[in-house]
Amino acid sequence: METKNSALHLIPVPLTGSTTSYLSTESIETAHKITHFIVENAKSARLFLKSINHPTPLQSIEIEIITDKPKENWQWVKSILEKGLDVGILSEAGLPAVADPGNEIVKIAHQNLCKVITHSGPNSMITALMASGMNGQQFIFHGYLPAKKEQLREKLIQIVKSHNYPNFTHIFMETPYRNKQVMEIIFNNVPNSYLLSISANLHTKDEINYCKTIAQWKVFDSSIFLDAPAIFCFTKN
Amino acid sequence: METKNSALHLIPVPLTGSTTSYLSTESIETAHKITHFIVENAKSARLFLKSINHPTPLQSIEIEIITDKPKENWQWVKSILEKGLDVGILSEAGLPAVADPGNEIVKIAHQNLCKVITHSGPNSMITALMASGMNGQQFIFHGYLPAKKEQLREKLIQIVKSHNYPNFTHIFMETPYRNKQVMEIIFNNVPNSYLLSISANLHTKDEINYCKTIAQWKVFDSSIFLDAPAIFCFTKN
Repeated sequence: METKNSALHLIPVPLTGSTTSYLSTESIETAHKITHFIVENAKSARLFLKSINHPTPLQSIEIEIITDKPKENWQWVKSILEKGLDVGILSEAGLPAVADPGNEIVKIAHQNLCKVITHSGPNSMITALMASGMNGQQFIFHGYLPAKKEQLREKLIQIVKSHNYPNFTHIFMETPYRNKQVMEIIFNNVPNSYLLSISANLHTKDEINYCKTIAQWKVFDSSIFLDAPAIFCFTKN
Repeated sequence: METKNSALHLIPVPLTGSTTSYLSTESIETAHKITHFIVENAKSARLFLKSINHPTPLQSIEIEIITDKPKENWQWVKSILEKGLDVGILSEAGLPAVADPGNEIVKIAHQNLCKVITHSGPNSMITALMASGMNGQQFIFHGYLPAKKEQLREKLIQIVKSHNYPNFTHIFMETPYRNKQVMEIIFNNVPNSYLLSISANLHTKDEINYCKTIAQWKVFDSSIFLDAPAIFCFTKN
């Protein structure tokens, strides 16, 4: 493919309750020059473009939705790149392609020798890891653990018993309404000596980070975490 | 411990060649109010404080070095917090406590019920993962893989053969002068069908991100990566 020096730009969108102030001047200047975006959510994409005062009228900016058919998405991206224009990729919130859609398009872009350029932004799982005080040299990010009780229980036991990655920090996300149930299953299946940290409302003024042993959590009033968007980290102590 | 509402702030320092423009106004305002820092490197810490135009004269700012004795470090941190003052923790570059020193102090802080507050900044491994196009929902960060040839070979074979985390992306760092040797060992021990991405000079204008199958890498001139600070990601394709 001949991309005439055009590129696919991975641009972070603010997390809920956050601002765009993390974007460097260079990243904002780059985003201002891009008029074609492939996005997870059109509404949040337009809000983002408005928040960075994009100089092109929103109705003149072409927005394509990321679907579960990355090859078709790539055809659209390719058609823009072949005109010598850049394409921006935006997820609904946070970094595109990290625990969010977009990576399949990036993968095809590489196979077509398209230039891929990143822009930095906050990432909840890394922030939660930093806040936990656990091993930040070696860790496993599991995404979402199984939703069903019995499968979650089995998964936790498998992680605790595994000898392959003994001192790694384990990180996972959960949907807020399930926090209470997940905490109960962790308390009942992870040894008392293990450390568990819960970080909620990250990148907002209401951020909370607690790290305790399972034994300490069992006697702690953890109701502050109910229904809050949270990241969990746990590790052998 | 009674911390009188004081807190331990985890503050990111720019990566080589980068600027502090990622720091939010709120983070800079917070850093301006802190006059006690525990840091990986005093010189880079002073450069950082200068770059954010810290209003207190540098000679009046107390800087303690992070050692391999976290309990002693904590005694210093605790003595400041007990005065009702905040403490900032800075690594040499990047996020403190993530692939950098500081996490042991954070861990003790939590056990002493000290408030831990994070500030966002760029992180090379997450940026490399985003740029790779690989699975960003599930991944393992290995830190540095073994330095010795035979141990590195064994580790790679173990990762490839492991059935516990079949579709996870594997991420590791390497010191620049070892890139050539590491690439050779990967090419010889990871299946041709696997995807390998190499990201170098991240968060600078010279950033490069390539993702190819091992078979494609074998016939690609990868000399651009020699001696560049790089992050490697690989996964089953």
